[in-house]
Amino acid sequence: MSEVSELAIDLIRRRSVTPEDAGCLPVIGARLARLGFHIEHLRYGEVDNFWATHGANNTPGAGPLLVFLGHTDVVPSGPEDAWQSPPFEPTMRDGRLYGRGAADMKGAVAAMVVALERFVIAHPDHPGRVGLLLTSDEEGPTNLDGVRRVAGYLREIGERISWCVVGEPSAKAKLGDLIRVGRRGSLSGTLTVRGIQGHVAYPEKALNPIHAFAPALSGLAAERWDDGNADFPPTSFQVSNLNAGTGATNVIPGALTALINFRYSTASTEADLRRRTEAILSQHGLDYTLEWNLSGEPFLTPAGGRLREVVVAVCRDLCGMEPEQSTGGGTSDGRFVAPLGAEVVELGPVNATIHKVDECVEMAELDRLPDLYQAVCERMLLH
Amino acid sequence: MSEVSELAIDLIRRRSVTPEDAGCLPVIGARLARLGFHIEHLRYGEVDNFWATHGANNTPGAGPLLVFLGHTDVVPSGPEDAWQSPPFEPTMRDGRLYGRGAADMKGAVAAMVVALERFVIAHPDHPGRVGLLLTSDEEGPTNLDGVRRVAGYLREIGERISWCVVGEPSAKAKLGDLIRVGRRGSLSGTLTVRGIQGHVAYPEKALNPIHAFAPALSGLAAERWDDGNADFPPTSFQVSNLNAGTGATNVIPGALTALINFRYSTASTEADLRRRTEAILSQHGLDYTLEWNLSGEPFLTPAGGRLREVVVAVCRDLCGMEPEQSTGGGTSDGRFVAPLGAEVVELGPVNATIHKVDECVEMAELDRLPDLYQAVCERMLLH
Repeated sequence: MSEVSELAIDLIRRRSVTPEDAGCLPVIGARLARLGFHIEHLRYGEVDNFWATHGANNTPGAGPLLVFLGHTDVVPSGPEDAWQSPPFEPTMRDGRLYGRGAADMKGAVAAMVVALERFVIAHPDHPGRVGLLLTSDEEGPTNLDGVRRVAGYLREIGERISWCVVGEPSAKAKLGDLIRVGRRGSLSGTLTVRGIQGHVAYPEKALNPIHAFAPALSGLAAERWDDGNADFPPTSFQVSNLNAGTGATNVIPGALTALINFRYSTASTEADLRRRTEAILSQHGLDYTLEWNLSGEPFLTPAGGRLREVVVAVCRDLCGMEPEQSTGGGTSDGRFVAPLGAEVVELGPVNATIHKVDECVEMAELDRLPDLYQAVCERMLLH
Repeated sequence: MSEVSELAIDLIRRRSVTPEDAGCLPVIGARLARLGFHIEHLRYGEVDNFWATHGANNTPGAGPLLVFLGHTDVVPSGPEDAWQSPPFEPTMRDGRLYGRGAADMKGAVAAMVVALERFVIAHPDHPGRVGLLLTSDEEGPTNLDGVRRVAGYLREIGERISWCVVGEPSAKAKLGDLIRVGRRGSLSGTLTVRGIQGHVAYPEKALNPIHAFAPALSGLAAERWDDGNADFPPTSFQVSNLNAGTGATNVIPGALTALINFRYSTASTEADLRRRTEAILSQHGLDYTLEWNLSGEPFLTPAGGRLREVVVAVCRDLCGMEPEQSTGGGTSDGRFVAPLGAEVVELGPVNATIHKVDECVEMAELDRLPDLYQAVCERMLLH
């Protein structure tokens, strides 16, 4: 069995449902410490985070620094008997490794560890620095104590990250067919529209906030926020939840609540979207409050960025594919690292089975993943 | 103390919160039986109903028949210590009788009983018939086992009601200042709009039913359904409840539910409103289902109707007021009696305190109410 499979199996066996790490990080820390990595275990709240660096001049801020980013936590398995083999008993079958986290993303974490080990053994005095940043809170609802807080800590100690490879499962059908070169921003809002409660038989004494909101909602849903750009699709607006009413059928409700979300491109700014949303609401004369929450700004490693060109070349040379360079999908922890000044590119296994039953990764692709990561290290730091 | 006050106090003392009758109907039945009324206690489900008639030829269908309609159930009192005197301990204070049901409508029920007693004692061989129809389920949410079912029973036995006086509290500031000559209809619907659930990050793979519904909702809210007519205000449309979303902020919901209600005039029909609603929904290409529920058709005793003219004249002659002749407010049990072919008019005490703490009725007005009801009997049957 390959080195990377063995480590992946060890990690999958650990029931590290968010925010549990279940001992994954100590295993990794012990391995990297033996090779001279500087290790920090950073526990915030219920979350275990991990920061390891290696280099001849291994002090914060000494560059250039290439970091691999990942997470050890997984989403819940759902009913275990819906799986062909138990989700936390990694099983090899038909050339695939099955288990919760196989693709998202313990396979990639194992590959990062093996790649870093091979790189520092092959090049013990490599120029620059390499690092590994892991968290046990990427899949949770808030991500408050994960990479967001580690990034704050790194900023405090004067650390700078030049390049960051995120191991999130990016591929569509085959390893190397798609990389992510950025992610859209996510801006949420809680909107409350106030009316005047009353009896449905006396509408003249009430003001129905559902009726009042309808034209504004139509306007928001029809608005074209931007046209996107070369790297991003157009900004999208969605109302995820809309609630009004007491349950009683004879009462006009006094208020309406809507949860809204923008997934936005770099063609818009957070401030633009807030201003334009509130302009539409005000134009319809609504009595409202709107509380905004910025989950993540968009980030982009532009065409011509060195990490982006190297990762593309590695896919081409080692996988024989010209990868699609996408900014699609949800958010990733890359959004917390990009503001540190890093170019961020995401390269990982096929994502077809993530968050589903019978999650799996192709063994042959898993075995090739350390080669890809190692090649990125060599091309970024040695050439 | 007056006869009507004494009976009202006896009734208010009984905690007859819907669907409880708490012994009110047996008290009334015993009194009327002594005077030769034919009495039927009709219990449907948890609801006590009461049907009493009197006349020389007292057989079903023998007309003309003048019926008084009321209910013995009351709405809950809410926290009893919010009341100045306990809601089920009737208390006379400052010329008013306080207690839950004083105005809605045990005062009027007592007045009907006293009026009927006086009428049959004064005119034991009166022409035609008089009757009293009472239920303990007028204030409940469905009214399934109240007057609706009694009306079905009366239809079965071949009974016909010529005129019906409802004792619901109709007056605004003084007894006799407003009578109701009809009520709007109430048509409800449960609308489900289907979309396609998905992740907010991939809106192109989903169809947001909130966004899809928005233009149709605007259209429904802006529609002018009719202009009303001489007797009714324009039909009104209200969405009382609107719900979509799983609670999760990153999920586009798969469906939306709206509860809608029309309060409609005789200028529209139920069929019109259904057809026009569905046309607006279809025009916006929605995938929807809509379950309709007709709570009550509108009814109207037109100007020139004999009962309406007599009640107006009684208000003028006994109260010195020209009553407003209204079709406003919610629904009433009159909607179940009107389809039996009856002219229906509502005449009762001031409604300012109904469904509130410290519900009360003016003692002087309560004492006059039997005179009004007795005068209606005499003018309808003797003249």
